[in-house]
This record gives sequence, C-alpha cells and structure tokens, in this order.
Amino acid sequence: MANKKITSRDLDFAKWYTDVVNAAHLSSYSNVKGCIILEPNGYAIWEKMQQTLDKMFKETGHKNVAMPMLIPENLMRKEGELINGFAPEVAWVTMGGSKQLEERMCIRPTSETLFSDYYSSVVKSYRDLPLKYNQWCSVMRWEKETRPFLRSREFWWQEGHTVHETQEEAENETRSMLKTYETFFKDYLAIPAITGRKTDKEKFAGADYTLTVESLMYNGISLQSGTSHYFGQRFSKAYDIKFLNRQNGFDYAYQTSWGVSSRMIGALIMVHSDDDGLVLPPRIAPTQVRIIPIGDNEEIMGLASGYLKSLKDAGISVDLDNNDQTSPGFKFAEAEVLGIPVRIEIGKRDLENGQITLTRRDTKQKMQISKDADIVSEVNKLMDTIQNDMLARATARRDSMTFNATNLDEFSKIMNTTPGFVHADWCGDENCELKIKEIRGTKSRCILEDEKLLTGKCVVCGKEAKHHVVWGIQY
Amino acid sequence: MANKKITSRDLDFAKWYTDVVNAAHLSSYSNVKGCIILEPNGYAIWEKMQQTLDKMFKETGHKNVAMPMLIPENLMRKEGELINGFAPEVAWVTMGGSKQLEERMCIRPTSETLFSDYYSSVVKSYRDLPLKYNQWCSVMRWEKETRPFLRSREFWWQEGHTVHETQEEAENETRSMLKTYETFFKDYLAIPAITGRKTDKEKFAGADYTLTVESLMYNGISLQSGTSHYFGQRFSKAYDIKFLNRQNGFDYAYQTSWGVSSRMIGALIMVHSDDDGLVLPPRIAPTQVRIIPIGDNEEIMGLASGYLKSLKDAGISVDLDNNDQTSPGFKFAEAEVLGIPVRIEIGKRDLENGQITLTRRDTKQKMQISKDADIVSEVNKLMDTIQNDMLARATARRDSMTFNATNLDEFSKIMNTTPGFVHADWCGDENCELKIKEIRGTKSRCILEDEKLLTGKCVVCGKEAKHHVVWGIQY
Repeated sequence: MANKKITSRDLDFAKWYTDVVNAAHLSSYSNVKGCIILEPNGYAIWEKMQQTLDKMFKETGHKNVAMPMLIPENLMRKEGELINGFAPEVAWVTMGGSKQLEERMCIRPTSETLFSDYYSSVVKSYRDLPLKYNQWCSVMRWEKETRPFLRSREFWWQEGHTVHETQEEAENETRSMLKTYETFFKDYLAIPAITGRKTDKEKFAGADYTLTVESLMYNGISLQSGTSHYFGQRFSKAYDIKFLNRQNGFDYAYQTSWGVSSRMIGALIMVHSDDDGLVLPPRIAPTQVRIIPIGDNEEIMGLASGYLKSLKDAGISVDLDNNDQTSPGFKFAEAEVLGIPVRIEIGKRDLENGQITLTRRDTKQKMQISKDADIVSEVNKLMDTIQNDMLARATARRDSMTFNATNLDEFSKIMNTTPGFVHADWCGDENCELKIKEIRGTKSRCILEDEKLLTGKCVVCGKEAKHHVVWGIQY
Repeated sequence: MANKKITSRDLDFAKWYTDVVNAAHLSSYSNVKGCIILEPNGYAIWEKMQQTLDKMFKETGHKNVAMPMLIPENLMRKEGELINGFAPEVAWVTMGGSKQLEERMCIRPTSETLFSDYYSSVVKSYRDLPLKYNQWCSVMRWEKETRPFLRSREFWWQEGHTVHETQEEAENETRSMLKTYETFFKDYLAIPAITGRKTDKEKFAGADYTLTVESLMYNGISLQSGTSHYFGQRFSKAYDIKFLNRQNGFDYAYQTSWGVSSRMIGALIMVHSDDDGLVLPPRIAPTQVRIIPIGDNEEIMGLASGYLKSLKDAGISVDLDNNDQTSPGFKFAEAEVLGIPVRIEIGKRDLENGQITLTRRDTKQKMQISKDADIVSEVNKLMDTIQNDMLARATARRDSMTFNATNLDEFSKIMNTTPGFVHADWCGDENCELKIKEIRGTKSRCILEDEKLLTGKCVVCGKEAKHHVVWGIQY
C-alpha cells in the first residue's frame, strides 16, 4: 500500500523524486528563483552528515575556518582557468548601499582564490606547513535548470583547502580525502560509490587532476558525489604562496581542495528510497527510532516511556508519537515517509503474549520481541542489520547495472535500454569522448586507476586504448 | 612579564584589542574590504558557542533550517520599516553570469522577510503552530568602519524566527529567548550581562519591541550583545501569514526573532583578557587544558601521556605541547596568549617531591599537586573555580563601573571620567534621549522593566519620569 502522495518510482522517476522530497518535507522552493529552503527534516540530515564528516576531518588534522563570502573580481582573475570556468555562472554584487562599487565582487562559487590569497600572507617557511583548513558554508552558482539537492543556485557544502611543502604530501592528501569520502559513503550513507580520476575534459577548472566519488542512482543515472583536487603549484604561483624551504631557498607550495555538498541528500533519496517515501540508513538518520503506542492504557504508556528513556540514555536518537488526533495507521505511514529506520509498536494484542513489535523501514518486515527484552541491544542489532542490508542491496543493484562495452553499438544499446555504469576502454582523445556524449549525453565518470584494460582498444575509434574508463549519464 | 607583542590594555585599549586578536590568531583582515577571516583559533571559539547554544535551542523545541542568502528587492519591500532600516547598508546583486537581473536582490542583512514569506506558504491552521525555527549563517551589512568581531561587513550569527497562534505565546518566546541568552552569557561566557527593553529609537526596525542583552567591557564601553524581538502581527500582515483559528475564522500570526553573533567573541576578549593575551572561561574554551612536559625523561613523558588519556576519556578538551624546538618559557607564553584555562607542567624539580604543577591562566596562580592525584577531578575542580572566579570578577568590575545620575552635570561628569553603565530616570521623550547622546554619543542601553524609578524625574528635563534606564557609550 504505497503512499498516495507519492508517484510510483517505476512510473515516473523524476516525479517520484519530487514527491518524496515534498512528502518528507525535506526542502521547499523559495520565492528566490533557483534557490531552495532546507526545511527542518532536510536540514537535520545535512547536520548529521556535517557532524560525521567534521569528526573525520578533525581526526585527520584538519581545522575549520570561515572565509568571506565575496570575492573581488581582480582576486578572482589571478588564476585564468578558474575564472574562465566560473565566470558564466557567478552572481555579481555591484552596489553597496546606494553606491556603485569601484570593483564588482562575486558571491563565492568556490573559494580557492580566497584561501590562496590568505595562505600567501601566512605561509612564510616550511615550518608553517602543512596548513589543512576546511569551511562549512553555502556557495552560489547561477544555474539555469535547478532541482532540489541535485542542482540549485545556492547549495551547502564543505570545502577543504590545504597547502603543503612537497608534491608527494599534497598528492597523499588528495588521495586520503577521496578515501575519507568513499568511506563515508559506504559506512554511513550505505552507498557503494566508485572512485577514480576525471578525464581532462571533466576535471575541475584549474586542477592538475581531479579525483571523484561517483554513485549510481536507482534509475541507472550517475551522480558526481564528491571531488578531491590536486593543484600542484598552479594557484601558489598565481597567488604567490612562497616559502623558505629546508635549503634556505624559496619554493612555491603545493595545494589541494576537496568538497562534498547537500547533493548527497539527493543521492540518499535516489539510491535507497521507495514508493512509501524516504528510506534512511540508521547511521545517518536524524531520528533512528520512533515509538508508537497503539492505545493508551497504563501498561502501554509505561513501556513507551521506559523504552524512550533507555534508548535516549544509550545515545540512540528516538522519539515518541503519542498524538491522540491520529490513528496508528496514519502514524505508521508518517514514520515511513520520513524514513525512520526502526518503529517500535506497542499494542494490546502483542502485549497479551508479552510482546512488542519492531518494524524495519527498509523491508517493512515486522518482528516480535519480548516486552522485557533488552531494548537497546535489540534495536542496535536491528539497526546494524538494516545498515548492512541497505549497503548490500545497493551494491547488488549497482553491480546489476554495471556493464562492459567493447564497441559503440553495444555501448549505445546499453545506454538506451538499461543505463548504468558502462566500462569501456578509451584512447585518451577528447574527440572520442565527445562521440560518446552523443549517446544520451553520456560522459566519462572516471578513469579507473588500478584496473587493467578490458580489450586494449578504444571503444570509439578502435585505436590503442590508454585508459579503462567508467561512463554514465549524469545528473 | 607581559607579552611583548601586546600593547598594555591600560595604555591603549583599542590597540591592545587588535594585538590580542592578532597574537591569538583569532581573525585576520582579508583582501575583501571590511570582511574578516575567522582563523582556526577564532572559529573554534565560535564553534563552541554554536554547539552550546544549539543544544539550548533544541532542548526548548527549536529546529534548524537554511534559507536562501539572497532576497529579491520586492520581497524586501513588503515591510516598509525593515527596508528603510536596512536599505542603506545592503549589498546588491545585479548580475547573474553575464546577464543583468530583471530584479536586483540583496544579500540578507537579516532574514525576517524570507522566513515570513516561507511561513505564509506553510501555515494554514492553528494546528500548524507554533513553528520555531533557527538558522546558523552569515549575513552582510555594508558598514563603513569595521573592527574584528565587533563590526564587519559579513558576520556570523544565528537568527531564530518563530510564528505563534497568540500574542501571549509569542511574547513568552521573546522573553524566554532573552533568558536563554542571559543564561548563556552568565554560565558559559562568565559575563554578567544586564537585560531590558530598548527604547523606541533603539529598537529593531519593524519590531513592536526589542529586548536586549547588554554587557560592559573592561574600559567601561557597552556592547549590545544579543537581541530578542517581538513583532506582533506586523510581518504576518505584510506577508500574509494567515491561519484558520479555533473559532473557524482567520487570524494573522504573531512572530518573534532573536539573534546573537560572532560579536560575542569580541565581548569575551574585552571582558576577560589581559596584557598576556586571551583569557577564556573553561566552559567556552576550545582547548581547556594544555600539558607541558619540562624535559623529556621517561617518567615525565609517561605521566604526560597518562594525563592526556585520562583527561580525554573524561571529555575534557586537552592537548600536549611536546615540541622539541621551543623552551618551556615559550610554551607557557604560547598557552597564555591562547587563553588556555589550565596548564599542567611536569618537570624534574617538582617530581623530586612527587609533584606536578597546575597553573591557572586567569590569575597565573600555580599550585602543586601529587603526581598520583586524580587528575580528572583536580582539573575539573580547578576549572569550576576559574569559571566562578571569572564571573565574580567580571561582576565586581561591572558593579564598580555602574553609577546613578540624577542630573545632566553628574551624568556628563561620569561619562567623561569613569564611563560605564549609568542609571538614570527618563521621561520617555526622544529629545531628552538625543540630549544625552551629546555626551560622548551615550545611548540608552535598555529600560529596566522590573525596577523602581530612582528619583521620579527625567535626568534631562526634570519632568515626570516614566522609565528607569541604563545608559552607556557603545561600540
């Protein structure tokens, strides 16, 4: 019995996505064109993501800072590729109060320029290095088409910016942060992302290279879900981040940046959710457990408040739905649409046998346990199972939508019938990349770095292949 | 022996303030005019403030959201007083990419308009009320003169916006959030703020009335440190926040907003710090304890790492300075300039007597304890003492700088010799307020709501007084 407010996922995926966002009250369009509002339920997921990642960043020696939200045009222009990449899509501030500004400023689309300018003033010696800073903020890109979480003019993200003494250390940082993201996706979001290197065409403007985390949605469309860039000395030369090296000479520093955004909420929806609404992995769910009393006699209410206390004390995020205006059926549907992983239902009939019911959101399975069971350990066990099962299902689905193509016909047939991740060898020529783009806009997701070639021949031109690439249609 | 990088507080207070900000690496000016960078040490204090307040907000039923950072001009113009109050000091976005916008938008100086617009779309019935939302973000006001934390074009804050069924409920919220701020200042920042109501001249543009938290700096200058506004139905009428009431008719909702900002870091500095740098109350210090080994024999290093672990396990924020490039004296000065409340010094001489030394940052007092003492309980005890003593000293100082004035001569003499909080009765006429402003720019801080009049006569015109007001020179 699917939620009536939600279009079936298999009937109209785009409509289903919007319906889930609305039914779960995650975000709402604002009267500011192209900008969304993160409503409490959406913001709570973002907050949980922030807390989890922030801990991971700090454990690896990163510190938070806050940079200005505006960038003067001249500062932006110091690095040519970056301004070329972003100029068409920034918002320009031209007036302060009633006065025209002498120099216009853009709202940050990303903050490489600001961090580089700051680093140039504080990095004097190799002893000052590395500096590993991060900021949580929103950025603005003047997109034309927007969709909640996936693409909007303003979005929320973190951007890490680090500066190092040596190339090796900076490259290690680039890789290590990619690994952090991959772990976060797997262990918390239950999303089996693939990772690799972007082709030159798809890399970040101004980067030597870009590493990426790519995930596959339920409908076979890919989502670029996080990136980690190695800049070499490009910005340090443009912004003059010079330091006294160990040989008493001067070197330009090596830099990285890396980021993930509120787009991850879109990934969570499109990987896990269903026709009844949101499905959240327990480790990222803002509310992990909801207790629903069915009826309100003394025993039921006593048990409910006892469980509430025990679970809270154990650090589990739990609430109690004792609204006397709504039926149990309504309460169940409500908990489902919000994606709360575990429901505890306490009703007369179960209690006659000394039992209560635990219901999993992901599979809808119900399970009776003794009302006197150790509720904390039962819930924790069930949440572990849900978390693992969700990852296993997402992995199996991704694998079932992953294909090899050895020629363009095959490639085209896959993308037109069962889109997903397509593995195919590539010669490295951008023209072949463009040829593939003609197939429903398919782009290279990433170059797999540690895998062997499939056939040794480019899937487009048949010439000698250089790379084993994963391709996909993207959001 | 004061820190050589820091000007004496009694010699040049403004220079001292800047020196402390720089020496403790709290913030740095950016190349974006009027905007500061929150460096790691400054951001860490802000983060601790955020975490503490966020918990207090959530415990009282508030939820976090995120609104767009831009406000279209027309939306802003719906409430006349607000736009009049803020128009001279907003940053206007007029271009997106290379195109002129049809309607310019300002970067939010505050978000009453956005919240009201949102509430008008989601509030349908009294059953939807109250909605108690908050957001953590930065806002932009095009100030001419800026000073780190006290006044800058961009600053970081939280803004709570709530919407209620009745006037009574909304007024209770306004008062309750003022109380929350007062408690936070007292219990965490160790600042004895005074509270009351702003005069009409000093209230927030668009508010029915504004309640305020005012604190007094070491030099006798006042700082408006947090405000809580009651709007009545003014915004709900301008933005059409109408709901079905319990009588099946329609009512306009009642609203509040309230906020505190990164300016509180300025207050912390100017209330507590000294010529050796920052002094932080233990409950808001990002690093509460620093362990400094003096020498590095096996016993010293063993004790250091043992204390580190015990304190960490107890949830105390602690680090270990075992840099072998710097002397103990340098390490002590460094811990002092950063305002770390407690130092644990482990040295040979003490150990010969089986002792170690705990040093308080606030008083510089040293105290020997047995190396085998329960370090967690000793440190917690000392931190409680420091926290209480800091509040007691700040309270005594505030009281010593609080005066009564019964006529304008007296008033003027106080402000010109020993500025501080001046209590004086006022008739309620704005002309008398303006007369007082001629004395070094003195403004009303707040009307005390529960206190009796002092003389019953206005301190300016001598006519019958309506209010007992606290006055001060402000930042």
